[in-house]
Amino acid sequence: MTSPVSLPFTRQEHEKRLDAIKKEMHSIGIEVLLDSDPANIFYTTGYDAVSYYTPQTMIISIYRTEPILVIRKQDLLAAKVRTHLSEDSIIGWQDYMVDNEHSHPFELVLSLLNEHSLSRLKVGIDVDAGMTTHFDTSFLIKGLKKPITEVRRLINFVRMIKTDREIDYMKQAARITESSMRAGLDAIAAGVRESDVIANVYHAQIKGTSEYGGDYPANPPVMPTGRRSATPHLTWSDEPLMPNQNLTLELSGARFRYHCPLARTVYIGKTPPKDLSDATKHASEGVQATLRSISPGMALSEVHAVWEKINIKHNLGKTSRLGYSVGCAFPPSWLERTASIRPEDTTVLVPNMTFHLIAGIWKNHWGAEVSETFRVTDRGAETLCDMSQELYIR
Amino acid sequence: MTSPVSLPFTRQEHEKRLDAIKKEMHSIGIEVLLDSDPANIFYTTGYDAVSYYTPQTMIISIYRTEPILVIRKQDLLAAKVRTHLSEDSIIGWQDYMVDNEHSHPFELVLSLLNEHSLSRLKVGIDVDAGMTTHFDTSFLIKGLKKPITEVRRLINFVRMIKTDREIDYMKQAARITESSMRAGLDAIAAGVRESDVIANVYHAQIKGTSEYGGDYPANPPVMPTGRRSATPHLTWSDEPLMPNQNLTLELSGARFRYHCPLARTVYIGKTPPKDLSDATKHASEGVQATLRSISPGMALSEVHAVWEKINIKHNLGKTSRLGYSVGCAFPPSWLERTASIRPEDTTVLVPNMTFHLIAGIWKNHWGAEVSETFRVTDRGAETLCDMSQELYIR
Repeated sequence: MTSPVSLPFTRQEHEKRLDAIKKEMHSIGIEVLLDSDPANIFYTTGYDAVSYYTPQTMIISIYRTEPILVIRKQDLLAAKVRTHLSEDSIIGWQDYMVDNEHSHPFELVLSLLNEHSLSRLKVGIDVDAGMTTHFDTSFLIKGLKKPITEVRRLINFVRMIKTDREIDYMKQAARITESSMRAGLDAIAAGVRESDVIANVYHAQIKGTSEYGGDYPANPPVMPTGRRSATPHLTWSDEPLMPNQNLTLELSGARFRYHCPLARTVYIGKTPPKDLSDATKHASEGVQATLRSISPGMALSEVHAVWEKINIKHNLGKTSRLGYSVGCAFPPSWLERTASIRPEDTTVLVPNMTFHLIAGIWKNHWGAEVSETFRVTDRGAETLCDMSQELYIR
Repeated sequence: MTSPVSLPFTRQEHEKRLDAIKKEMHSIGIEVLLDSDPANIFYTTGYDAVSYYTPQTMIISIYRTEPILVIRKQDLLAAKVRTHLSEDSIIGWQDYMVDNEHSHPFELVLSLLNEHSLSRLKVGIDVDAGMTTHFDTSFLIKGLKKPITEVRRLINFVRMIKTDREIDYMKQAARITESSMRAGLDAIAAGVRESDVIANVYHAQIKGTSEYGGDYPANPPVMPTGRRSATPHLTWSDEPLMPNQNLTLELSGARFRYHCPLARTVYIGKTPPKDLSDATKHASEGVQATLRSISPGMALSEVHAVWEKINIKHNLGKTSRLGYSVGCAFPPSWLERTASIRPEDTTVLVPNMTFHLIAGIWKNHWGAEVSETFRVTDRGAETLCDMSQELYIR
């Protein structure tokens, strides 16, 4: 350890997570897991550096106490100060291999597997790991020269039930979400450039509170304005906001890679159109009814059914999923890519699961959005942010 | 078109790019190219929305004027207002397919290929496209039921030579890089939280200038401090900066997805240690000597050789590559993932190629970094930012 660093999670918490992962590995009959998803690596080892644009992976053997982290050589120190791993569990590949068409960093992974006699075991590879291309994963599969088990998001699913410490960080992220949303709302006015609004949002996202600073969110805020609010994923422009314009703002604070997303709807002017204020009110009614209905043991399909009644009652016309599991995340998004709140998902709620529930109403020429991030509690659901769901008038 | 939008590039420029891509496709013997990399999609069609966390792709046929963009249904409008594509070239997949273990959005891609009689042609797939996993790409390869050509970063390489309009945006990004670096340097002082420094950086990155706002950079700033500056990719903490501490700050402004990265070194205190001030001075000397040597027709290996002389002369010990091609980019990084400035790279310089040249000196317990983004001109190299390479004292 070259620098005294206090990590966000104890070694014990990381060991508990690793045990849960190994249990899942055992249950699907694999002894070694290769996973390259930066969020899964962070969750398992604590490693957090902007190094995931080059190939890196984590080797978990059910017979080895620690995972082996394989990263670029120039990032070795980053792993030493940002994980509890011992030095012989952090291995660096040589720099000439980056973007080199004649050699691949995962050559080192293959030789490590042989060195530790792991390639003879039953190997599973997360073939759906974020930031890892078909080319990278194929290099491993071809190199192993034996059948492997294709794993999809095994660790993502383990991540769904949070520990109390993870919930703490999501609540800290929630405070940052609130102040960032307020910074955005405060800046919104006719004539202000959209980019100036988002500049204030970003400032608040990173500044955090007086007790703690913010981490970078896994994706940028989205703020589609006017007719563009009919679609959810557009960022800002540098055009000035117009009088009598509506917009939606969706963003998240982040704390140690934990997120707490939130969306709100704004009208710039004195008298919002009735369809916009009605849609916002009804979306909020749907969010509240759905949250009130939640209890552990319920399936996500049942949660969706509660929403669907309000959706039909007010003819809101929302056809997309109502939400998804959230937590620790790296680019490109704060999503965990596991369970969704929708008719087909039979995932059963367990305390300390966390979801982003999004009532996004996208019509032909305008949109409204009200969302909440909630935690499943012993008896119901607790929203992490505390912010009126009204249509904000600016 | 549901909203009047002025796009950053003309239809003519996009057509020229597409022609260049089709020429490359022809030269490697493919008639259809599937590419899912968000930067390649943006480059070819102009599409720019935060939708790349779900599978999306672009189908280019050398026999069809426009590419076909296949995205999630709720993002259709985003593509209509952010591309020149006609409506029948933008196809949306149904929402139930997102994160659904029983169906895949690329089913639609396969049926489109059949519908347009494209699957009978010679198909190439970019198997190394960012944001697209082994699982996603394998779904296409298996579904095509015939041999395909594995393509690696074909469009990335086409992107290397910029048009004048692209250079304009990189220069606009450079102005934002300068103001963001200044915002960071101005905030740095003993006792200030690292997160408060970066909050100011982000504010400047998005605020931009009085003439134009900023886009979100493809990756966060990095600011390793003190002993952690011995490694390049750590972000900030919320600890206060310490007296007599050094740090490096690397960041980029962004304008319409175009980047212009820059790194500088800072010492907090009155008298910097000699090894730090020497390393910064020598790194700067190396950067300047290398830039002065550049001319079109030179190979990147030759560019590196100029640097290597300074590296050896001052015993700087830099073993990693000296830089890489940059331009338009989406998360996780501003890199184009093509050519590198290093001994093995024989890429020949052509006017309007753009590179980030990084003299990063990472010792055991400290680091110094001086970088410049430059454009190859008709006769030499032009740096895009104008900012002293000194060791900044705060």
